[in-house]
Amino acid sequence: MTATDAQSTNTAQGESAAPIETDCLIVGAGPCGLFQVFELGLLGLKAHLVDALRNPGGQCTELYPDKPIYDIPALPVVGAQELIDRLMEQIAPFDPTFHLGQEVQAVEPLEDGAGFRVQTSAGTRFLAKTVIIAGGVGSFQPRKLRVDGAERFEGTQVHYKVANPEQYEGKHLVILGGGDSALDWTLELRERAASMTLIHRREEYRAQPASVARMQGHCAAGEMRSLIGSVTALRERDGVLTGLEVRDLQGEMHEVNADQVLVFWGLRPALGPIADWGLNLHRNTIPVDTEKFQTSTPGIFAVGDINQYPGKKKLILSGFHEAALAAFAIKAIVAPDEKIRLQYTTTSPLMQERLGVK
Amino acid sequence: MTATDAQSTNTAQGESAAPIETDCLIVGAGPCGLFQVFELGLLGLKAHLVDALRNPGGQCTELYPDKPIYDIPALPVVGAQELIDRLMEQIAPFDPTFHLGQEVQAVEPLEDGAGFRVQTSAGTRFLAKTVIIAGGVGSFQPRKLRVDGAERFEGTQVHYKVANPEQYEGKHLVILGGGDSALDWTLELRERAASMTLIHRREEYRAQPASVARMQGHCAAGEMRSLIGSVTALRERDGVLTGLEVRDLQGEMHEVNADQVLVFWGLRPALGPIADWGLNLHRNTIPVDTEKFQTSTPGIFAVGDINQYPGKKKLILSGFHEAALAAFAIKAIVAPDEKIRLQYTTTSPLMQERLGVK
Repeated sequence: MTATDAQSTNTAQGESAAPIETDCLIVGAGPCGLFQVFELGLLGLKAHLVDALRNPGGQCTELYPDKPIYDIPALPVVGAQELIDRLMEQIAPFDPTFHLGQEVQAVEPLEDGAGFRVQTSAGTRFLAKTVIIAGGVGSFQPRKLRVDGAERFEGTQVHYKVANPEQYEGKHLVILGGGDSALDWTLELRERAASMTLIHRREEYRAQPASVARMQGHCAAGEMRSLIGSVTALRERDGVLTGLEVRDLQGEMHEVNADQVLVFWGLRPALGPIADWGLNLHRNTIPVDTEKFQTSTPGIFAVGDINQYPGKKKLILSGFHEAALAAFAIKAIVAPDEKIRLQYTTTSPLMQERLGVK
Repeated sequence: MTATDAQSTNTAQGESAAPIETDCLIVGAGPCGLFQVFELGLLGLKAHLVDALRNPGGQCTELYPDKPIYDIPALPVVGAQELIDRLMEQIAPFDPTFHLGQEVQAVEPLEDGAGFRVQTSAGTRFLAKTVIIAGGVGSFQPRKLRVDGAERFEGTQVHYKVANPEQYEGKHLVILGGGDSALDWTLELRERAASMTLIHRREEYRAQPASVARMQGHCAAGEMRSLIGSVTALRERDGVLTGLEVRDLQGEMHEVNADQVLVFWGLRPALGPIADWGLNLHRNTIPVDTEKFQTSTPGIFAVGDINQYPGKKKLILSGFHEAALAAFAIKAIVAPDEKIRLQYTTTSPLMQERLGVK
């Protein structure tokens, strides 16, 4: 494997570096993205993979490495991480390059129609003849505050992560949420702020009890305020956010001063930047045909849980099948004059060469 | 497993036995037929399998058990028989019933549209709500003599196997072929026949050299005749076959007396009886949709190498995917009122119960 972590690929990035040219860029290094490498490799194509996570394996590795999986054919039971390890072994002969810990942000068709210009959040740039989205449930995006105008203040007065704690100095700060992130930042930023209000939608907090107790102590001491209820509207003056309207569980309305709002409602799977690539979408999925698994943009394919077609089932097995068929379609784009012959791997000269068997 | 060989299932057959009622009859016990059991089992459906071969595994077991396969996901290399063994282990919790060494002959829709009446060559009868054809390349059928009228004499004067050696007693017998079957029967039947002619299309025989030598000895002694050439036409009088016209390699024509013709040109994969079930066919394949993998007859499905749809690739992997989707469609037929929820096997109560895990 050429590079399996963010560090080793970061060396190739930066504004001045030439873009990496590749036949195929795979977006997502979960099981389907990994098996895609194999199917492309059988047809003589090399691939680069990009994934927001720091390790290959997607959810299998990140969320439930020890869970047993029973429905992979001919593997009566396999742990999720073991599945990934087996796939990594299977694709090793095809020498894929991983670009991890970075998200593909922009995908733009080249003027001459011969591929796509791709850029990641780490600045890695590609010229890819084809792109395969193997994005699973998408990337994990923060749950947004959905009241009128909230989007307009995003990044200036409404935030979903703490980028620079100093910007809350001397401000009326409101934090939304009831988990560890909400409680930790409440306790961390309280002293900097002119005022601090924690708003949570129900009585029970999901945070460490000790943090909740500390927060409640500060409230009892009059050092901050906590409210149980829901934000119903923003207040603003001259285009500047000044406060939130909150309805409590009894239906009573409250107005809360707010210069800055931090929302910690957790992450949810969403398409993320993929939504901006100009593809036809259906809710959080990408419609594809059932012959090539190609999206509405020729040259961009989607395999695995992220795609949608009549009869689609979100099975790893189906993603593997889709990867196989997409590989043939990609081969036809990358090498249109080369005759593709379906070869049994048992007798394929390529497999024999790659594996050193004869 | 309830029954894994022809013997144990033969006990349940015979004209008088009641037909076996089943949700699903799987025709073919190769890798896709086996995995079909698993996918049905996950949805709570039990299946019976019929296969012409004496063992489960189809071509994997019959033709190349030791060959390595490289393109099963997460199995970097697996022997063909090992693949079958793994699938047998995987489906064991769902307790399929095998009916081996017999071919499904007739499949007829029930009058009430609620399924199919099925009968095998061994007399086993089924009432099946649904039928899945997982027939691979089909069954192996004899290569036929393709000259005008040959079909008309099939079973009376033109044969592809020796059913009753006595019927050749005192006849002008012609055997076509150059392999072991042709040579063995030539030597075996020569003395019974009034005359014996062996016709082969080229000089080289594929039979045991000793058999060829014996045959040539009989020719030298004037006890039979051998001809190198091709049958170009039949001669007949009053609807009775009387002889063959044969062109030799020099282009010279010969007439050969023939009361009986035995053709031993080997076997080739063909649909066999499936061709008579009233399904739309495309050459030797069965067109299906890409959502349910259902044939032109509702309730009859086809998965694996035997089916055809736009983009189809004959990959074991694709057959597995097709089996998964067909299972959902079958569940909807068998239990139309039951809500199907796609469950990850990791958390499926059914898998946990079947496997005794919790």
